[in-house]
Amino acid sequence: MGAPDRGRSSGQASSTRRQFLLGGAAAGVGAATALGIDYALTRDSGAPVSVPLNGDETVPFYGVHQAGIDTDAQAHAVFVGLDLRADTDRDGLRRMMMLLTDDAARLTQGVPPLADSEPELGAAPARLTVTFGFGPEFVARANGAGPGWLQPLPAFGIDQLQPEYTDGDLLIQVASDDPVTVAHTTRMLLKDSRSFASVRWVQTGFRRAHGTMKPGTTMRNLFGQVDGTTNPTPGTADFDEVVWNTSGWLAGGTGAVIRRIRMDLDKWDRLDRSGRDQSIGRFQSNGAPLTSSPHGEAAEFDEPDFEAKTPIGFTVIPEFSHMARARPVEAHERIFRRAYNYQGPPAGDELSDSGLIFTSYQADVERQFTPIQRRLDELDLLNEWTTPVGSAVFAIPPGCAEGGFIGDTLLT
Amino acid sequence: MGAPDRGRSSGQASSTRRQFLLGGAAAGVGAATALGIDYALTRDSGAPVSVPLNGDETVPFYGVHQAGIDTDAQAHAVFVGLDLRADTDRDGLRRMMMLLTDDAARLTQGVPPLADSEPELGAAPARLTVTFGFGPEFVARANGAGPGWLQPLPAFGIDQLQPEYTDGDLLIQVASDDPVTVAHTTRMLLKDSRSFASVRWVQTGFRRAHGTMKPGTTMRNLFGQVDGTTNPTPGTADFDEVVWNTSGWLAGGTGAVIRRIRMDLDKWDRLDRSGRDQSIGRFQSNGAPLTSSPHGEAAEFDEPDFEAKTPIGFTVIPEFSHMARARPVEAHERIFRRAYNYQGPPAGDELSDSGLIFTSYQADVERQFTPIQRRLDELDLLNEWTTPVGSAVFAIPPGCAEGGFIGDTLLT
Repeated sequence: MGAPDRGRSSGQASSTRRQFLLGGAAAGVGAATALGIDYALTRDSGAPVSVPLNGDETVPFYGVHQAGIDTDAQAHAVFVGLDLRADTDRDGLRRMMMLLTDDAARLTQGVPPLADSEPELGAAPARLTVTFGFGPEFVARANGAGPGWLQPLPAFGIDQLQPEYTDGDLLIQVASDDPVTVAHTTRMLLKDSRSFASVRWVQTGFRRAHGTMKPGTTMRNLFGQVDGTTNPTPGTADFDEVVWNTSGWLAGGTGAVIRRIRMDLDKWDRLDRSGRDQSIGRFQSNGAPLTSSPHGEAAEFDEPDFEAKTPIGFTVIPEFSHMARARPVEAHERIFRRAYNYQGPPAGDELSDSGLIFTSYQADVERQFTPIQRRLDELDLLNEWTTPVGSAVFAIPPGCAEGGFIGDTLLT
Repeated sequence: MGAPDRGRSSGQASSTRRQFLLGGAAAGVGAATALGIDYALTRDSGAPVSVPLNGDETVPFYGVHQAGIDTDAQAHAVFVGLDLRADTDRDGLRRMMMLLTDDAARLTQGVPPLADSEPELGAAPARLTVTFGFGPEFVARANGAGPGWLQPLPAFGIDQLQPEYTDGDLLIQVASDDPVTVAHTTRMLLKDSRSFASVRWVQTGFRRAHGTMKPGTTMRNLFGQVDGTTNPTPGTADFDEVVWNTSGWLAGGTGAVIRRIRMDLDKWDRLDRSGRDQSIGRFQSNGAPLTSSPHGEAAEFDEPDFEAKTPIGFTVIPEFSHMARARPVEAHERIFRRAYNYQGPPAGDELSDSGLIFTSYQADVERQFTPIQRRLDELDLLNEWTTPVGSAVFAIPPGCAEGGFIGDTLLT
């Protein structure tokens, strides 16, 4: 999936650069020269071929929307939920967001902030993006209004929420193809937020590394399932309608739902291949709906036939499968997913603590996300192997222009 | 740093492939054709250029030495320390190692083991290596002898060891440029070790991503310092002498020291640039010794002048700096480092739990490693900001031929 033209105001050459890397048609004459020879391959013809270092790639910071949502998902992400300190008032929020915006604008372009004591670690942004989100308390202290959906999700029966992964006043989402860059950027931002807010939770996630797979390959979660097939495509009107909010200070922003879903891989291991396919409604092999072929890459994107029946009269795609339950009942029940895997040391005699940092973006959380989640809560075969252990909702304000700051539509 | 020719017995084309990617001189005629067009760049000439997908790259499994030591360090690694179950006897050890060897031999070549229920996750090895090590209890149960250094390190005054990162009977070291591959491989191996051993500790580390930097760039730790400048170079006689053991069942193997070093980044942040340079004895900027220039890439590898004095008579490289204390007093005090960074959620009001998974390999731990560590324990400016919180020593047995298994020199 190529990079959409985000229409940002930055004069950086990164967009051209990226299209070049991904084989886009828009690579201009001279682009290779501009890139320099970062390191060389020797082709069979013997001629050296320049390959751009991914570390040098940048995603523009300034623009109508914040980066990190319609950006092709980077390999690594850290999500930090912060609590505002008791004495952080509206003026403090403004100062904090001006400071964090300046840091993020620099770091994402590979320019160290003035207070950076390890500028060497930030020299390779590798498509670094920083995205900020506001919780209910943040908006209240800013004397802002709404949106109405900016509150904890309804309590679901399947939830076993732990406070260390739940709620928060400020979200800092850092993503890059390089894990050192993510680690350094996260610390740099937390340093500058320190006098205004404290760390409430941290979640670290990963996807396939840059260069592992063909660009555009749908990610797989640790169950082995493709995850995100039906996503709207960034850069389309469809995506814009699903994701971007259009009202008040949030116009150009969106709503973020971040849920930590523990996946019981030890139990999942005991399920056979057919059981796995049935639970999701897709073939694990290629991600195709069960009404298509389990072979071939293209079949992943086939339309599922929820009416098709087996010879003995059951639907081919089980009614209680994840896919059948998650599909929109109303046309507006659509979301944009951008999940990350996590895996850490086990508790007790398990082999790992594994799961998914489920992340979805939608213009209106209550209208688009909650009905889907309610259906999944009521009935979803996959619930047998998954448990939500964290949940948070944030309003992601729009992007800003140079000279402005993230949150300026709320705070000025 | 190009891939050394490891002289492995595998017939895979990966070695050629890797030299090709890294610009080695040995890329044969037709290599590009063999690689296929994984994805295409468009050069300014308009001609498509194939770029190999890093996910397809493999490191041979079979050979004189186990892979994962002289392999250019991959971006991601997981180190797992296991405890043998009470009823795992010598025969059990043999069965376990035959099973794990078969899994590792397949997974590293992108071939799923028979019992793999998520073969899709293992399809992109991305230079996956799996390396096994044996603790004292493993060797005892195998009725094996020595080596004498295979025991916990002496207690050092700076240590604050936590049992959850210390000791262990079996080491499984999994490394790849792709984090999903590391996660999946780790689980796959733990599944097959489950009836013989239980997880004691897990440490997950990272370096720069594949493609972020020029190959051969020395890694930096989270203090921002270059880490590993004076390492011997794989493929040289010097490396062979430092790393590979030559006696008995361990011939072709080595000794591994894995120490988790907590780095107090919050405190480090309060140290100025000059203080940082003094503590290590090198410029943070380019890693050059303080007796060289802080500018220019090449200076990193200049010989330090430990005798050079400042105008007022102090040594330019402080006697108590990490570099001055760590340098060999006896010529044999040399090790091969292959460290990984870690960063996780903070405890208390800190910003992160950060540090280094210090990993060194040497033929004889007591003779080569321990004297260095003893000097650092006695005096090292860096101790002010670092605390060892985990420590483990393992004997890494040699590699094996096809049909054999890792540990067969000890267990048959």
